[in-house]
Amino acid sequence: MNIPSKIVEQAVEEFATLPSIGKRSALRFVLHLLKQDPEDLKGLASAILKLKNDIKYCKQCQNIADLEVCEICANPNRDHSLICVVEDVRDVMAIENTLQFKGVYHVLGGLISPMDGIGPNDLKIEELVTKVSQNKTSEIIFALSTTMEGDTTNFYIYKKIESLGIKTSMLSRGVSVGDELAYADELTLGNSILNRTPFEMSFQK
Amino acid sequence: MNIPSKIVEQAVEEFATLPSIGKRSALRFVLHLLKQDPEDLKGLASAILKLKNDIKYCKQCQNIADLEVCEICANPNRDHSLICVVEDVRDVMAIENTLQFKGVYHVLGGLISPMDGIGPNDLKIEELVTKVSQNKTSEIIFALSTTMEGDTTNFYIYKKIESLGIKTSMLSRGVSVGDELAYADELTLGNSILNRTPFEMSFQK
Repeated sequence: MNIPSKIVEQAVEEFATLPSIGKRSALRFVLHLLKQDPEDLKGLASAILKLKNDIKYCKQCQNIADLEVCEICANPNRDHSLICVVEDVRDVMAIENTLQFKGVYHVLGGLISPMDGIGPNDLKIEELVTKVSQNKTSEIIFALSTTMEGDTTNFYIYKKIESLGIKTSMLSRGVSVGDELAYADELTLGNSILNRTPFEMSFQK
Repeated sequence: MNIPSKIVEQAVEEFATLPSIGKRSALRFVLHLLKQDPEDLKGLASAILKLKNDIKYCKQCQNIADLEVCEICANPNRDHSLICVVEDVRDVMAIENTLQFKGVYHVLGGLISPMDGIGPNDLKIEELVTKVSQNKTSEIIFALSTTMEGDTTNFYIYKKIESLGIKTSMLSRGVSVGDELAYADELTLGNSILNRTPFEMSFQK
């Protein structure tokens, strides 16, 4: 691309570092911003700067938070002995939206992925092991992606905490709600036959 | 979405104002930025601020520029009597990439669109009329989108400059290179039959 201004070009380069944003989309953003009020641009710029300066991570679960402890961990009505292990903040939000979980979370900040150079020490695994060995923990639920990396991470953590004798579980895998069987992949369909649930359970709320 | 941090939420709101970016994509941007170095965030923020403070518009063609006059208008080798009228900067870049145009541009900054509340006075049409009536102009090429708004704008400008007796032209319309005829829409195909070109011209460079 032959951008006629160095300033615009630099802004395009910066926006193009965002995930799944190429130079074309970045240029659209920049041309859009050029048409906005200066105040709007200041708003965006200061929101970005605040991200680094003001954001905190919950001491207990590593979730993003405005205070030392996030809203979920600070809530006395939640079951603090039931811990759901997730990859990142988006998963916390997704599970919260289901309204089905009353425990607390532990955010790993990623998954073990040797291909991307991410090892166990890059994640908040030690913090989890320390937490569950020091506090009363009734159950650990693994809620990681059903990918190779997710399964590797599940297994690594499981091996670390196996000796503590804490109950562990993982999200059930099966056919998604609304899926047509003919289009389900064999692995999913095969698993959902092997792990079939008693029919009466489908009436439970 | 139930974002557990006000700071993150505000950044998401800001990013979601960018064109074709929803809250989900905005959240992905923000979580990506949270993992970056503080220096990278400063780079993005300052590039955004610079857009408003430092960017200039070429006095002659309204193209974005770092100086008073853009590179194209400042180039003595270009034909300053041949003016190509375009909607925005992206169109200048697209035409420049073809290497087929040696004249200069005039950037309108939009198209007449009553539905969006954009009238002729919101665009740089007066500047164009003043320019072509004061300077020697051999030809005006209309290179606007082939939409209702583009055609309206073409016609509005044409009516304004008709009395000056300057030669005007517009981009040829027809079947795109690589298109299969069976999939071309009727309007395009009909036009390309009516405006068929002599066969020898297809050999011209």
